[in-house]
Amino acid sequence: MSDLSKNKIKWIRSLHQKKIREEEGLYCVEGEKMVLEAIAYAGDSIQLILHTTEFKFSHPSADSCCVSEKELAQISTLKTPNKAFAILRKKEISDFSEQNKLTLALDGVQDPGNMGTILRIADWFGISTIVCSKNTVECHNPKVVQASMGAIFRVQIAYVDLAQWLKKQSVPIYGALLSGESIYAKQELKNGILLLGNEGNGISEDILPFITHPIAIPRIGQAESLNVSVAAGILVSEFIRRTNS
Amino acid sequence: MSDLSKNKIKWIRSLHQKKIREEEGLYCVEGEKMVLEAIAYAGDSIQLILHTTEFKFSHPSADSCCVSEKELAQISTLKTPNKAFAILRKKEISDFSEQNKLTLALDGVQDPGNMGTILRIADWFGISTIVCSKNTVECHNPKVVQASMGAIFRVQIAYVDLAQWLKKQSVPIYGALLSGESIYAKQELKNGILLLGNEGNGISEDILPFITHPIAIPRIGQAESLNVSVAAGILVSEFIRRTNS
Repeated sequence: MSDLSKNKIKWIRSLHQKKIREEEGLYCVEGEKMVLEAIAYAGDSIQLILHTTEFKFSHPSADSCCVSEKELAQISTLKTPNKAFAILRKKEISDFSEQNKLTLALDGVQDPGNMGTILRIADWFGISTIVCSKNTVECHNPKVVQASMGAIFRVQIAYVDLAQWLKKQSVPIYGALLSGESIYAKQELKNGILLLGNEGNGISEDILPFITHPIAIPRIGQAESLNVSVAAGILVSEFIRRTNS
Repeated sequence: MSDLSKNKIKWIRSLHQKKIREEEGLYCVEGEKMVLEAIAYAGDSIQLILHTTEFKFSHPSADSCCVSEKELAQISTLKTPNKAFAILRKKEISDFSEQNKLTLALDGVQDPGNMGTILRIADWFGISTIVCSKNTVECHNPKVVQASMGAIFRVQIAYVDLAQWLKKQSVPIYGALLSGESIYAKQELKNGILLLGNEGNGISEDILPFITHPIAIPRIGQAESLNVSVAAGILVSEFIRRTNS
């Protein structure tokens, strides 16, 4: 019933490698819900939809192919593959300067789960752009894509030489630092860039000088740090609360 | 050089199962940093420290045993075991009512990473108690313990019949619901209980009636939801900001 050749399976599986994704300019999305979100929000990027007979969808132009549960399991990165799998073309991001809104900048965030969760935070709060240093985890990593819960289709992500990029910005650059000023006490919060660093090491030495406003979440207890995605959520929430009222 | 018998290795590995942890009243902690935190904050609960020759520590009374890297790998749940491993006795929590502080209540949080991150949030903001429904992920699950980054030693966690417990409380019960009142707009936030639900299904039907104040984090963009630990971070931060000032 299926026209999924061994070679095609091999090619799809190769897309689970970053190097191949970069060469091909493609990435994968898995599961019923995510593929439906892809159809709704990134329909024109879809190259191929692979699905079991149970998956109901409509797409005017994308190629699709009915596969067995077994074939789906062969191409999937999930423990429990779920009905659908899609291959999408990455979007090129050329112009991402938006001086009137809050922009997130990530300096070396490594964990795919954290990255996906940060995309989801941006999506929730209507932040349209995330600018990442080149050593930040790739946003098309399967774990990032899945953890983003569809935010990957709605938030634009750019990978840049962060120092070079920050140098050119004229808006306030708020950096999350343990030694920063309390976000609660800070008199004024304006839209600009909110910069978050690596899970273990924080913001790197060469990026620190670009911070115009070091900020922190006050610590009352004894934890050494907060998870970077939780810190992102708290800081973004406080910016939104203050700049929208 | 080592006195770690096959049987002992087998017994330690059995502690990675919830059932055995419950029978024995023990749990495990891994890695140099976590074991040092255990010594500092839960020293009297430590039953046994297993460590390589590289691990430097002092503990006046706990049994310890020098092991090889290979033995450490055999008992570890980590991909890259790191120098030390400890077995601790669980603490019984008898009295956890603290009417003057914010208490977190979790109704069916399932993901160990989320649970660990919520412990870390509590630890950061000085919340001393988390009350969990019986179907919330076990806090001594190895992934919870590791994700807590030491918070497991400083925050007390109780598993209760949540409906029965909530029924007896006289403080405000704030429930995180998509349909709740904006936390930003809410006129008054008092200390009480902050209730968070399951990742997929939110707060369960039988718990909803106990909520005296349904609250929400305003959504500006299009994400369907926030990660539960991120929501916990944002809500706790807002409570702390408002009740401490």
